[in-house]
Order: sequence, then C-alpha cells, then structure tokens
Amino acid sequence: MVKYEARLDAIFTALAHPARRAMLARLGRGEATVGELAEPLGVSLPAVSKHLKMLERAKLISRGKNAQWRPCRLEEAALNAASDWIEAQRKIWESRLDRLESYLHTIEQRDRSKR
Amino acid sequence: MVKYEARLDAIFTALAHPARRAMLARLGRGEATVGELAEPLGVSLPAVSKHLKMLERAKLISRGKNAQWRPCRLEEAALNAASDWIEAQRKIWESRLDRLESYLHTIEQRDRSKR
Repeated sequence: MVKYEARLDAIFTALAHPARRAMLARLGRGEATVGELAEPLGVSLPAVSKHLKMLERAKLISRGKNAQWRPCRLEEAALNAASDWIEAQRKIWESRLDRLESYLHTIEQRDRSKR
Repeated sequence: MVKYEARLDAIFTALAHPARRAMLARLGRGEATVGELAEPLGVSLPAVSKHLKMLERAKLISRGKNAQWRPCRLEEAALNAASDWIEAQRKIWESRLDRLESYLHTIEQRDRSKR
C-alpha cells in the first residue's frame, strides 16, 4: 500500500510541471532523444535531463540502452495508474450522488402518497 | 494557455501527497470538517489545514462560509481537468499505435502480394 502511494506521489509530482507534461505529450507521438525533447521547449540540456530523471523515477518514461542516443519512450502504465486513481474517486463521488438522488426520490414519493 | 498550465501544476502538485489524496477520497463520500478529515489520518490540525490550503488553491475542494465549521467539499471540475489531460495523452498515444498497426498491415499485404 505504501509502495502504491509512493508510486502515485512520484507520478503526480512528475506531472506537476508544464515542461514535463510537454515532454510526455511529445513522447506520445513517438520516441525522442534528449536533444529532440529540449529543442521545442527552449530549455538547456541539463534542465531537460533533470526533468527526464523525474519522469524516469515515476516510470512515466523509459530510456533505450544505446549509450549514444538513449531514446526516451512513453510508458503508458504509469499514466494509467494516475487516471485509475482519479477514476476511482469519480466512482465514489458518483455513487454518492446516485444514493442522494434515490433518497430524494423516495422522500418525494412519500410526500406525494401523504397528500 | 499559461493559466491552464498553472492550473494543472496546482492540481497535480495537490494530488502528489498521500494525505491529500486520502482527504479527497474522504470528501468524495460527503462533506467533512477539518477535525473529521484530521482524525483518520492521525495528523495535527495545523498539518491538515496546510494540506487543505493546497487543495483549495488547486480548486479541488471548496469550503463553506459558516465561520465555525467551514465544511470542506470536493469540487469535481478540477479532478476532471486532470483526467482530461491524461485522457488527451492516451488518445495521441493510441492513434499513434493505430497508425503503426495499419502501417505494419500495409507492409504485410505488400510482402504477401510479392510472393
């Protein structure tokens, strides 16, 4: 459980920066090198490397073994873990609204039968 | 655009802590006071207040006007903004996989017709 929570911490922290989200959006369209990720962002290679480390730690991306290029690739499982958590909250929330609606409906019916 | 990005930064930062996620999960089941949120977490009221401020800043929750209780309430729109962003990435990723599949299929067909 703690491991799952720590994983979500790392994923949401990694998603909490516009440069890292832009890098993930770019990687969704295909693999890219550090240079290719840096260019449209207009940030330095060391800055991009730092962001990449956070994305790697969250397992949102993986990197190739080729020492020279080490292309970056999106790993969908981590994005799924984040959306699964949000989806679970939505289900709790919606089932609560459903219960509330059915309760209001019951009261309405009771009031009508009393008239 | 910058405002939208800043909003996502605040939302994902707020989601990046187990106590704040637990508080949101609790609020999904209904409104709660600061005390009710603090108790199951076993953390101090000041610590909970700090977490609440981050959730409020991200507009993930709102608080009642009643000065004494100020019950906290989940605001679904912010959770939707987070899942919409993730969903958009998934769509880019999936359309890329679809294109890749259709490309591989075309090659396969061409190879067969050459035999």
